[in-house]
Amino acid sequence: MEKFFYPQSLAVVGVSENPYNLARGIVDNLVRAGYQGDIFPVGPRGGSTHGFSILPHLRELPQPVDLAVVLTPARFVPQVVADCGELGITRVVVESGGFSELGEQGRALEDEVRALIQEYGIRLVGPNGLGTMNLEIGLALPFSQIPAFPRPGGLSVVSQSGGVGMHLIAWMTREGLGLNKFLSLGNKMDVAENETLAYLLQDPGTQAVYLYLEGLEEGRELMALAQQSQKPVFIQLPNVGPETSAIAWSHTASLASDERVIDAACKQAGMVRLKSQAEFLVAAKMVGRPPVRGNRVVILSRSGGEAVIGAYACRQWGFKLPPLPQGLAALIHERSRSGIIKPTNPVDLGDIFDFTVYCEVMEALCRDPEVDAVVLNYGPVYEPEREEARKMAKVLIDLAEEAHKPLAISICASLEEESYFRDELGLPVFRFPGEAVRALAYSRTWAARPEVMLGRKSPRFHLERVAALLAHTPTGFLSLPDALSLLPLLGVPVPGWQTAASLEECLAAARDLGYPVCLKLCAASLIHKTEAGGVQLNLLNPKDLTAAYAHLEALAQNVLPLGEPWEVLVMSQVQEGEEVILGARRDHAFGPVVAFGAGGIWTEVVEDVALRVAPISAEEARRQILETKIGQILRGVRGKPPADLDALSRVLTALSQLMMAFPQVQEVDLNPVRAFLGSRGILALDARVKVAPVKMGRGSSPHEDQTE
Amino acid sequence: MEKFFYPQSLAVVGVSENPYNLARGIVDNLVRAGYQGDIFPVGPRGGSTHGFSILPHLRELPQPVDLAVVLTPARFVPQVVADCGELGITRVVVESGGFSELGEQGRALEDEVRALIQEYGIRLVGPNGLGTMNLEIGLALPFSQIPAFPRPGGLSVVSQSGGVGMHLIAWMTREGLGLNKFLSLGNKMDVAENETLAYLLQDPGTQAVYLYLEGLEEGRELMALAQQSQKPVFIQLPNVGPETSAIAWSHTASLASDERVIDAACKQAGMVRLKSQAEFLVAAKMVGRPPVRGNRVVILSRSGGEAVIGAYACRQWGFKLPPLPQGLAALIHERSRSGIIKPTNPVDLGDIFDFTVYCEVMEALCRDPEVDAVVLNYGPVYEPEREEARKMAKVLIDLAEEAHKPLAISICASLEEESYFRDELGLPVFRFPGEAVRALAYSRTWAARPEVMLGRKSPRFHLERVAALLAHTPTGFLSLPDALSLLPLLGVPVPGWQTAASLEECLAAARDLGYPVCLKLCAASLIHKTEAGGVQLNLLNPKDLTAAYAHLEALAQNVLPLGEPWEVLVMSQVQEGEEVILGARRDHAFGPVVAFGAGGIWTEVVEDVALRVAPISAEEARRQILETKIGQILRGVRGKPPADLDALSRVLTALSQLMMAFPQVQEVDLNPVRAFLGSRGILALDARVKVAPVKMGRGSSPHEDQTE
Repeated sequence: MEKFFYPQSLAVVGVSENPYNLARGIVDNLVRAGYQGDIFPVGPRGGSTHGFSILPHLRELPQPVDLAVVLTPARFVPQVVADCGELGITRVVVESGGFSELGEQGRALEDEVRALIQEYGIRLVGPNGLGTMNLEIGLALPFSQIPAFPRPGGLSVVSQSGGVGMHLIAWMTREGLGLNKFLSLGNKMDVAENETLAYLLQDPGTQAVYLYLEGLEEGRELMALAQQSQKPVFIQLPNVGPETSAIAWSHTASLASDERVIDAACKQAGMVRLKSQAEFLVAAKMVGRPPVRGNRVVILSRSGGEAVIGAYACRQWGFKLPPLPQGLAALIHERSRSGIIKPTNPVDLGDIFDFTVYCEVMEALCRDPEVDAVVLNYGPVYEPEREEARKMAKVLIDLAEEAHKPLAISICASLEEESYFRDELGLPVFRFPGEAVRALAYSRTWAARPEVMLGRKSPRFHLERVAALLAHTPTGFLSLPDALSLLPLLGVPVPGWQTAASLEECLAAARDLGYPVCLKLCAASLIHKTEAGGVQLNLLNPKDLTAAYAHLEALAQNVLPLGEPWEVLVMSQVQEGEEVILGARRDHAFGPVVAFGAGGIWTEVVEDVALRVAPISAEEARRQILETKIGQILRGVRGKPPADLDALSRVLTALSQLMMAFPQVQEVDLNPVRAFLGSRGILALDARVKVAPVKMGRGSSPHEDQTE
Repeated sequence: MEKFFYPQSLAVVGVSENPYNLARGIVDNLVRAGYQGDIFPVGPRGGSTHGFSILPHLRELPQPVDLAVVLTPARFVPQVVADCGELGITRVVVESGGFSELGEQGRALEDEVRALIQEYGIRLVGPNGLGTMNLEIGLALPFSQIPAFPRPGGLSVVSQSGGVGMHLIAWMTREGLGLNKFLSLGNKMDVAENETLAYLLQDPGTQAVYLYLEGLEEGRELMALAQQSQKPVFIQLPNVGPETSAIAWSHTASLASDERVIDAACKQAGMVRLKSQAEFLVAAKMVGRPPVRGNRVVILSRSGGEAVIGAYACRQWGFKLPPLPQGLAALIHERSRSGIIKPTNPVDLGDIFDFTVYCEVMEALCRDPEVDAVVLNYGPVYEPEREEARKMAKVLIDLAEEAHKPLAISICASLEEESYFRDELGLPVFRFPGEAVRALAYSRTWAARPEVMLGRKSPRFHLERVAALLAHTPTGFLSLPDALSLLPLLGVPVPGWQTAASLEECLAAARDLGYPVCLKLCAASLIHKTEAGGVQLNLLNPKDLTAAYAHLEALAQNVLPLGEPWEVLVMSQVQEGEEVILGARRDHAFGPVVAFGAGGIWTEVVEDVALRVAPISAEEARRQILETKIGQILRGVRGKPPADLDALSRVLTALSQLMMAFPQVQEVDLNPVRAFLGSRGILALDARVKVAPVKMGRGSSPHEDQTE
């Protein structure tokens, strides 16, 4: 990746003197950004631009170059790439559109280019993107005009959409946010987000990374990168539902993701998910500040109203406002002009014109380990005190810096005061106290990421016996008896059950199991038993059972395809317990995912489900359970005894290991599982397991023992 | 109020030549805002400022003035107000601080001023505020310097905090938002929010009103004003919890409100509640545009990425993206340069450089009654097409204007393009498509306000019989038998019950009622029966009952104060049904409020409750019920039959009427009420009614028949 960001020389292919020529914009941006390396414009019509001669062909280059940037009509791109290969240019940026984002024909062209880069060992950024920027060396490859560049700083931006990337960079310039590097992924034919992220995470100039993605293929790798990172990773992934997928497909060829899986993955990996560009501008202002490691915030404000607004934001974002240390409260009280200002938190300093007090307060807060972050609402500033106020702000910033205390400054003052912070101190400020608090919350999300993301892949159960059971069904749903036999192998208890081929066998089974029982009709084509009327509950005696059996027999004759074999499963009826659902499935980007949620009547109306990317540890499973409302109930409320959360955690862990070890398992649904208040264990009453022929892919190789 | 906004002449009291003099700032703002009326600075030291002589005393005024603006030390204010009274000046703005916001001494001073204005018939704005502004006539009374004024426009701002108000006005200037009038409430000694709002709602120059309040006393009146308004009312009320109340009290002397009551009141009255200043800036940009009357949005974007982001925002804010009309899809497809762009919604117009297509598309959308609003993402704009692009934008804006179709423009282009919209077209634009969609959502909130806010005050039940029952208990909780007797009078069914003074009476009662029964211990000091063990459930036969009675008898002897009378209530045991809670209480700002929510085990963990300000109609009660998750369940899910929502609605209506008619009723809790799936009515199993001596106040006069 290095040469994409630090080329010492480069060729720009597709330049002409025509005023509408787009590739000329690349040269223009490079010159205006102050790029110090050699620039060689190339275009068949020759001429000159920006004082450079336009070479008619790459072959005319007077020296080898590190990088070629290509912006020609798409149909010429394969030839240009081949030329690069012949000339030993191994890094190519293709900005031209007209590839896979435009359908079949473009896809063929893209395949052609892919073959060429493999042949020549070329690495390629794009096509259909804006290339890279590196403000450390004045590198700026986008063709669209960048009227003003952001100041060099610590944030690096990776954007799938060039337009969104340029728009963000324009706003970074306006808001005084420092940019380090930029890469526009475009169609991600070769270089994609994970490789870029890995590079940026080890890049000394990058303090934080922002990813704007419309599609994600290797989600697990992204998670692993983010989780091991010492730098905050922000991610915006708006392509999550039916509203967006059509457009994102034609725009950058991406598959929509499930929003809940994304949220789970971000949580596990400590990525900060941002849902809008406005949120990005807020979060980015804390880049380079120390992380917020707790919930306790002190707000200092010159305006009482802004203090109230900041306190409300703390409530919204889950921060506490601890009381001020005793000595500090006394100090503020004593120095307040009227002597009446209450030294509560938020601190209204409106009445204190002696700025040394602010500094003394800040010193004390910096020393106090009970304070996790400070919000300063700066202003209003009265004309005669301007210089003093600025000096005070500088002292406060330096104190925070020295003490590694996160300080967020919102400003309620004139544009000149704002630009003092932004331009002279290099510190972007927040428009409002609410935004300052929100930024602290994003920082806290990153700082609070779990230490270990994934659990053991290797299952704690007998692989051979599970494999044997799964082998019964090459594709489709396991039979109910097979599914129920699988569960104990995973350590999941089920009620007593037997299969029966006749009424007599049913009656015998019920005698063995003891009444009450329930009957379930089992047949390969009957996936949704309950909806079809194939489940008969609460059979108290042989008479009930006989009637229920007759019902199922009639159903089998009327509903099943002629000649399809069927049998009846007799199961002990379980009366009590809270209903929960445990399940697992595969996400196209993140692979195996396990779910836990409420069952029963509430399922339809409360979306009470928590997801995790597999495999998970028992501790993570417990956190997952407690994330739901039903989990809170099972922990014990209103004096009721708790349920067996450990047993539920073990099942989730086992499901996650099953998915990791057996890539043919597509979906598992244990619905319902009953959890008994008072720790009397759990019972799975029904199970659906879907298998499909194995497509071997990453993260799915069986029998691999690895603790991550 | 007129003279506070349209004075033809005014005196500014407290002016001196001292550069630190604050009142001089008022003269300065007036001059710079271009105030055309007469200005008379007044201050004991005389001199001159801004070309005006400073009169040594109000008595020296050469003519009567409409308004006096006072900014002297607080202790001099009573004398200045008295002088105004003597001179016949009946409108006074007091900007000085040092009154009730600073505690006891200040409160005495405020009382003194209050007595004076009553004596002289003076109306007063403030104290401890920044007065008024009216950009129609260049009136600008704040003392703090306003470096630049917003353009005159349609939004009027009422702010309790002067600092917050000035900060917002500075941002309105920056964002090109038009301001009409401004009033800083300060301590609200005389003029308060409702009178101001009423004035602004009839003021021809005001198109929408924004209220920033830290305290609220007459919430019902505010609701009534907002509900009858033809102009949107935005409200920010951050002072809702423990975090903010301490500071807001010392800052403007306000009582914290319950967030849920505020949300209910806003919903009923159609006020748009904003939770931050950033939200204000978003919402304000739609002021003056037609309201958004539905959920169907079309997004037009030149950038595919911005289109995806806009679509994601639609998902977040509950908008649908309907497919484009057939003809329109064909048109876009045909005119797209590559012919490949998919004419879905959001519409990616990135490939269309012929701007007449944009206009044709907009024309069609304006005609289409199936489209409720349009988002245009404008840009990027390539230099050579700038003029054409601007013309196109103007045409689109005019088309929307003509067709009364809400159009929100987000801009992804240079600062100059932004200022073209803001400064030349007078149309503030959104930074990002997500903000445009969010603004549409605020507009929809207002447009979707219910037609009728409050229901009948007059109860449909026998007032006399209710009054007689309530009269048994002058203060405290009604006895359980009284509370249960009250319910049928309100139309609320209860299970059969009888009281019993002995085991024999209990056994007889159970025989009458039929087993199973439950027993409840009744005694004046026993408020929380269940927690104390005073409720015995599921007694199946005389043996169970005898044991349960013995338990209660022992409890009464051990727990109740010596000699306190007690009895036992025998009630038919109800087994089935979903548990809900219905209740009512009084809010300090909004008066009687009714609540509906889930009961049982879910109550603790799901905050599943909906509130309404009383009185409510049956239709509103139904909406209230359906707002909760349990309401959704009771409507019928997963093939289960619905419960009797009409019966529940009637109970809520009756509770609301009870609260209106009987101001002595402080709280009612019907917990639990059982609602039976399959429309078999409802039963209230327990009731707690708290009464207190009547403090007659507004909205609480009994027997008043009025339909609002």
